[in-house]
Amino acid sequence: MELFEKTISSKSIYEGKVISLRLEDVELPDGQIAKRELIKHPGAVAILPITEEGKIVFVQQFRKALERTLVEIPAGKIEPEENKKHTAIRELEEETGYRANQFEFIQSFATSPGFADEVIHLYLAKQLEKVDHPALGDEDEFIDILECTIQEAEQLVADGRVFDAKTLYAILYAKNMK
Amino acid sequence: MELFEKTISSKSIYEGKVISLRLEDVELPDGQIAKRELIKHPGAVAILPITEEGKIVFVQQFRKALERTLVEIPAGKIEPEENKKHTAIRELEEETGYRANQFEFIQSFATSPGFADEVIHLYLAKQLEKVDHPALGDEDEFIDILECTIQEAEQLVADGRVFDAKTLYAILYAKNMK
Repeated sequence: MELFEKTISSKSIYEGKVISLRLEDVELPDGQIAKRELIKHPGAVAILPITEEGKIVFVQQFRKALERTLVEIPAGKIEPEENKKHTAIRELEEETGYRANQFEFIQSFATSPGFADEVIHLYLAKQLEKVDHPALGDEDEFIDILECTIQEAEQLVADGRVFDAKTLYAILYAKNMK
Repeated sequence: MELFEKTISSKSIYEGKVISLRLEDVELPDGQIAKRELIKHPGAVAILPITEEGKIVFVQQFRKALERTLVEIPAGKIEPEENKKHTAIRELEEETGYRANQFEFIQSFATSPGFADEVIHLYLAKQLEKVDHPALGDEDEFIDILECTIQEAEQLVADGRVFDAKTLYAILYAKNMK
């Protein structure tokens, strides 16, 4: 079966700093018309940083969308024209103060394919070194750092403090690497 | 450090069928004001269905946000007032024609905590039986079904046909179960 949905009309509702929203009428495979609400996002990177002692470096921050603090792996939006590996190196330093001597691509994934085009590119960072004067991150980001064994990370999942898909995937990935 | 962001003002930009968008001014821990673009979503369930032969049941559908066809585990939005386990049972039947005699909660997770409140509740479905006359799904959904071993699923990941976070997590989870 041909599953393609052809765009019949597209209307911009909002163009923001991070996301934009548009509404589209699409033609379904059976010729019917349906509405799609679509979010555009610039894409992001996430980093699974593992220290020499085998600990995962997490960041804790307040997430307004969920009205709660979450423990996550470091992540950040890709800036215009920015190479995504460079974004990952930059975000790791800004959010954790670490630089990695080994940086490896793991996997890219869409986060919410039902309504958003956001893709996260996940990297593994090893052979970490603390930077003396790390680059500063976004001025509207307030972050705490946690370093946890995989067992401790699994406890954070059980406690609900880790609660997002990229971080759950990264912890399971780290566990499988061993 | 107190990481909380207090809402100073909130403005609705769009109220849609699936998502809504609002803009908020928030007060940061240092007293500065920042803007947040926030998507509200009703939440969804996803199901990791495993057949008696140990195969994972996937659905293939066109995702307008990404302008491509993806292979994913079955999933769907929670209807108003609907119990989420019931959503999972309903979506499994509508999308795959299977009913499960064993249904277990695995994990809930936020998909895009930076801008959306969407939470997916993931269930494991086992002891599957084909239903003679399965309930029909949304009329704007066109879906193909695939049944794959874990090894075949990993090949779909390598080929990029599986490309979303919930499905990657589910495949890794299924692999770890064995």
